[in-house]
Amino acid sequence: MGPKLGIVAGGGELPGLVADACRAQGRDFHFLALRGHADPKVIGDGPADWIRLGEAGTGFERLRQAGVADVVMIGPVRRPTISELAPDLRTARFFARVGLKALGDDGLLRAVAAELEHEGFRVVGVHEVLADCLAVAGAYGQLSPDAQAEADIARGVEVAKGLGALDVGQAVVVQQGLVLGVEAIEGTDRLLARCGELARDGVGGVLVKLRKPGQDRRIDLPTMGTATLAAAKQAGLRGIAVEAGGALVLGREAVAVEANRLGLFVIGIEIVA
Amino acid sequence: MGPKLGIVAGGGELPGLVADACRAQGRDFHFLALRGHADPKVIGDGPADWIRLGEAGTGFERLRQAGVADVVMIGPVRRPTISELAPDLRTARFFARVGLKALGDDGLLRAVAAELEHEGFRVVGVHEVLADCLAVAGAYGQLSPDAQAEADIARGVEVAKGLGALDVGQAVVVQQGLVLGVEAIEGTDRLLARCGELARDGVGGVLVKLRKPGQDRRIDLPTMGTATLAAAKQAGLRGIAVEAGGALVLGREAVAVEANRLGLFVIGIEIVA
Repeated sequence: MGPKLGIVAGGGELPGLVADACRAQGRDFHFLALRGHADPKVIGDGPADWIRLGEAGTGFERLRQAGVADVVMIGPVRRPTISELAPDLRTARFFARVGLKALGDDGLLRAVAAELEHEGFRVVGVHEVLADCLAVAGAYGQLSPDAQAEADIARGVEVAKGLGALDVGQAVVVQQGLVLGVEAIEGTDRLLARCGELARDGVGGVLVKLRKPGQDRRIDLPTMGTATLAAAKQAGLRGIAVEAGGALVLGREAVAVEANRLGLFVIGIEIVA
Repeated sequence: MGPKLGIVAGGGELPGLVADACRAQGRDFHFLALRGHADPKVIGDGPADWIRLGEAGTGFERLRQAGVADVVMIGPVRRPTISELAPDLRTARFFARVGLKALGDDGLLRAVAAELEHEGFRVVGVHEVLADCLAVAGAYGQLSPDAQAEADIARGVEVAKGLGALDVGQAVVVQQGLVLGVEAIEGTDRLLARCGELARDGVGGVLVKLRKPGQDRRIDLPTMGTATLAAAKQAGLRGIAVEAGGALVLGREAVAVEANRLGLFVIGIEIVA
């Protein structure tokens, strides 16, 4: 167990999983929950301060008061509009420095990480606190991709790498060599729903999720769990490929069981740069 | 006016525009209309044979019987499934040669063009028969992009070029530097509808449509018309940028009038490879 962990919490269930991991290790933690993003049910009765995104000054202060040394940033944060931000002085100075154009892409998250370090915190990656969730190489369940699925995965990797290099998306759906959809900011759920409607007859496609080239693993990793499997099944896919060491698979055992139940494959693939 | 023109007609209004251009020039033409793709209202009472996609043998024969020398392929054709194809012997031989994996991307269209030339036809580009529709450089209406829109266009060009190099899409929507969506096979209408829902507060985004690098201009060019303007307005965009010399703008005057009426810009931009 390490020093007290600050969990800057965005949306979804990931912040809760980090807290669970801390509890399991007997490690102290403190949530800095982002209002409008973090889910109160996920934060639960854990020690927490709630702030708006625009209250960086308050946030740094709260983390310090809580005695936090390491900080992890976890869970999606929708790009704010300026009016939502209503930045405090500290935040306004920050935006003046990084430039508002940083808003909305990985640049913002990288800048926030740099700012946290500048304030004396150590920014740790979710893969360090949720090491069990980092995707491993190989099949998670009983099924593996056949030759067509392998070819679709290869095409998906090619496209996802190209997209990632442009700092756009992390996810691609390919069916029989045809790219059904690529993800920008809409999220994997919407991508899958759309691709379900666009799917062609014959054997179903695959979802490929990769880390962006050069992506800071401390900040944002592509993620999948049993809900992703359900959405993939609904969209007529045959399986999901994630980057080994570059994606999070939430609940290895649960994912394997659900993949088997649905008749899908889940596979961690090694990506060479 | 040239020799009799064969118009292999897919969906949308473009085949009708080509026929109109022929009529205006006093040039004879003959439709080879693809059943399930071509719109009977667009084909109208023009001289036409209807075939299924799988009837290449019949199609070549019909074009020859009609005395056609030049052929233009125009209008989107949804990737067929094998059962829809039910290929005739001639088509089956063709697929055996090009390989079924060619289905669904530009490779198929390129292969069909090569096959037509192999059969003695000359494949001409729509930009040759609809020269008036090829996008010109500069603003179509009264409005031009401001600095933010220029920056969004530049980002869109960067992403569209990267996507095009991967043979995926031709269209990208960018708002305030954020890539709201990238097009795969869903088409620009669906892309715009989705981006309307994903748009952020503040000044609206832009749609950028480019030709894919190396794309054969005889086969498939990105296209826009007044309907695209209406969808862009609906999605909260401020304008559309298309590649000068690499996209079709259907009805230059009508597009300018509609752009002015809706308060959008439409601009043809020069792309350096």
